[in-house]
Amino acid sequence: MKRRLLLVSNSTLHGGGYLQHCQQQIQDFYGKNVKRILFIPYALHDRDAYSKTARDKFKTLGYEVDSVHETSDPVDAVRKAEGIFIGGGNTFRLLKSLYDNKLVTEIRNRVLEDGIPYMGSSAGTNVSTISINTTNDMPIVYPPTFAAIGLVPFNINPHYVDADPNSKHMGVRSNDHAQHHNSI
Amino acid sequence: MKRRLLLVSNSTLHGGGYLQHCQQQIQDFYGKNVKRILFIPYALHDRDAYSKTARDKFKTLGYEVDSVHETSDPVDAVRKAEGIFIGGGNTFRLLKSLYDNKLVTEIRNRVLEDGIPYMGSSAGTNVSTISINTTNDMPIVYPPTFAAIGLVPFNINPHYVDADPNSKHMGVRSNDHAQHHNSI
Repeated sequence: MKRRLLLVSNSTLHGGGYLQHCQQQIQDFYGKNVKRILFIPYALHDRDAYSKTARDKFKTLGYEVDSVHETSDPVDAVRKAEGIFIGGGNTFRLLKSLYDNKLVTEIRNRVLEDGIPYMGSSAGTNVSTISINTTNDMPIVYPPTFAAIGLVPFNINPHYVDADPNSKHMGVRSNDHAQHHNSI
Repeated sequence: MKRRLLLVSNSTLHGGGYLQHCQQQIQDFYGKNVKRILFIPYALHDRDAYSKTARDKFKTLGYEVDSVHETSDPVDAVRKAEGIFIGGGNTFRLLKSLYDNKLVTEIRNRVLEDGIPYMGSSAGTNVSTISINTTNDMPIVYPPTFAAIGLVPFNINPHYVDADPNSKHMGVRSNDHAQHHNSI
């Protein structure tokens, strides 16, 4: 089964609306056969507000959105999903919630075995890779492992920032990139 | 017993040498009764090179340095230490190595019960707090918990960078600070 993935680095570009910069790609990706998309809002604290944002946007693109946090059985919701979208936020919070709700293996199976389309944005892209070891996010909660869904055989850093050689913040490691890796 | 802590944000300031910006404070802190300092280089990969750097610098300040990685029994080395210095690097790597070597409780006891002086720089400051939940570092390894040594009853972010309201990197969360917290 061919896996179908749309991995977006971030949901908003400077000056644009939510998912505006990739809306054509979203429609091309889910196509006309998918009618309902299962949204996973775990990366942000306010799941109701987040799913409203996603629902409103996807409606303009012709898709209904079910948010997994509104269902009584998240595993069953994934089992029945025609397509999945995991939004961005904090990658640690997202991964922990995916494990707490026993969705990691379930999503992997649906995407890799059943071939349903998976879209991730930012943190939703991070968790689609081997592990979250390359996230820039702050470790606000402790997931049971850093291993992620594993839809692709590599890791991604969706918000990589080139080093600023002119920065005078700190010393030998004076750039933003190194700062993400190390506290010297 | 009064705890004695010197928590430094980073080991090098732009344009300065290793620990140069705080060398007077280091001497004031360890004083003249401490002759040997136990250095913990776990935050960096090359422990030999790192302890040489620390040893050379502390020698100029009048202190001998024993690096814990050169001892056969790290726990015993902590038990016998007159003073401790934990250097910076990657906070996840550091905390994991502290747990792997069973040093977290041992260091806490020596500092809080025996009152030996503890100096931390950067990651060494992060691990002296309640937890590493506020580090900016990249989660390159998985520690058994984010709980840290707990020498102070709060957390610290030693490399906090103010938001840049003019940044056009990404969208609604267009600043460096938010970037550390979240991947939207």
